[in-house]
Amino acid sequence: MNTIIKGKPVADRMSEKLIKEVEVLKSKSINPKLTIIRVGTRPDDLAYEKGALGRCKKIGIETEVVELPEDVTQKDFVKELKRLNDDDLVNGILIFRPLPNHIDEGIVKYEISPEKDVDCLSPINVGKMIEGDKTGFPPCTPTAVVEILKHYNVDIQGKNIVVLGRSMVVGKPVALLLLNEDATVTVCHSKTKEIDKISSNADIVIAAIGRGRFVKENFVGESAVVIDVGINIDEDEKMCGDIDFDNVKDKASMITPVPGGVGSVTTSILAKHIVKACKQQNNL
Amino acid sequence: MNTIIKGKPVADRMSEKLIKEVEVLKSKSINPKLTIIRVGTRPDDLAYEKGALGRCKKIGIETEVVELPEDVTQKDFVKELKRLNDDDLVNGILIFRPLPNHIDEGIVKYEISPEKDVDCLSPINVGKMIEGDKTGFPPCTPTAVVEILKHYNVDIQGKNIVVLGRSMVVGKPVALLLLNEDATVTVCHSKTKEIDKISSNADIVIAAIGRGRFVKENFVGESAVVIDVGINIDEDEKMCGDIDFDNVKDKASMITPVPGGVGSVTTSILAKHIVKACKQQNNL
Repeated sequence: MNTIIKGKPVADRMSEKLIKEVEVLKSKSINPKLTIIRVGTRPDDLAYEKGALGRCKKIGIETEVVELPEDVTQKDFVKELKRLNDDDLVNGILIFRPLPNHIDEGIVKYEISPEKDVDCLSPINVGKMIEGDKTGFPPCTPTAVVEILKHYNVDIQGKNIVVLGRSMVVGKPVALLLLNEDATVTVCHSKTKEIDKISSNADIVIAAIGRGRFVKENFVGESAVVIDVGINIDEDEKMCGDIDFDNVKDKASMITPVPGGVGSVTTSILAKHIVKACKQQNNL
Repeated sequence: MNTIIKGKPVADRMSEKLIKEVEVLKSKSINPKLTIIRVGTRPDDLAYEKGALGRCKKIGIETEVVELPEDVTQKDFVKELKRLNDDDLVNGILIFRPLPNHIDEGIVKYEISPEKDVDCLSPINVGKMIEGDKTGFPPCTPTAVVEILKHYNVDIQGKNIVVLGRSMVVGKPVALLLLNEDATVTVCHSKTKEIDKISSNADIVIAAIGRGRFVKENFVGESAVVIDVGINIDEDEKMCGDIDFDNVKDKASMITPVPGGVGSVTTSILAKHIVKACKQQNNL
């Protein structure tokens, strides 16, 4: 028997807690604020933006979107970013990626203030993540994976966790975060041999390979916990994860759906990071 | 049958190549230079310093040691570091760690110029390592592990590698470096269950747990390649690795000794990083 573990209860509980924290800040005349920098109007960005703004509003976090034209120069982009770095009223800055080709992310990541970098663009925050330094901001999606496991009381310490995928966005960070939580972590990827066999020995499988319904039941051991970080669109234009949900669900003990799983928690992590940034900036 | 794979041939081949590179630089009136900052006179530091100075001299790299008194203040330490950051004649800076308790490494690591940080103290270089950005400087000891494997033509891509230990000094960095080399990497540590069983399934075992002769033959599969990063002193005041060498050597296909293994390559990696830093600083 399996349990479908959804993101909404995790996000709801986090929101409740954050609402109270924001109330306390406001009673001290401190108003946490997120500024999003968006270049152009990509549908992905707009969808995530809508979710993020809604979540922040619910929690009481102020928001602002700086929309820059598709052909903004690198110089103007950085100028805008620096303005936000220096604006004491802005606590968190989120830059939608990928940036257009003519804007060099390799330069931008050194420009964003690490203290306001709520989604781990700055190498300073990447470094803090690997060191397990809790003052930093690990990326939101991998952090959501850890939050879901903890919410549903899945034991992490000493468990064998297989991470499928080694991207900078999910695979590597989630592996490091779980290693810092005392899991025994194996990272598999396209060059891994017998990937299904390795994966099927895991207590917990995290799928982040970016291939729709790639993970079948042969990847999953009896009673494993399965977390799906994939967001793919299939040939019927239906959203699906990296896990073949119908094929895997009866074998897993717990499984996250797509949509409604990890993706529903990401904006709550973002909100949590904004509140944390705001507190740190106010020495609270 | 096993082959004992020593560090010296690796270091020698690297030195040969570096000597030529330094000659080319000198013909352009560029003199690569390392400055070591040492606080006090710990025997460990002095031993490593001797090795590093000897290696640099052999290769033609200039060296300088800034010895600071045990009771140097944090302010004076940082002042000295900044002076070296600003000194165009210094290409690489190595700070011996651990620093005395009254000097906060968490502050120092943000002060060292990332361009001169040849042993990965700066979070910028830690970040570059996880991203696989080749312009950075990963820490010398984990890099020596990868260098040894490559020197002895050990296939890394797609191999199952178990890293025993998750320190910031060796375990985590070596795992990331090998992941970027397309290995399937599992990181085990004190909280891992059945660590010997997991380790015995690996094609390559990297031991970096800091416990003398901890790894016995039950940790090692038939024909595995075994790399020992441990440096321990046993009750007879004899140096030994984390591997029980005599117990394991007949089972492994290749095994590094201690002393004479990874430790003999580390200063060559340091020299390589100094030359690389010097080239980058001169836009070569």
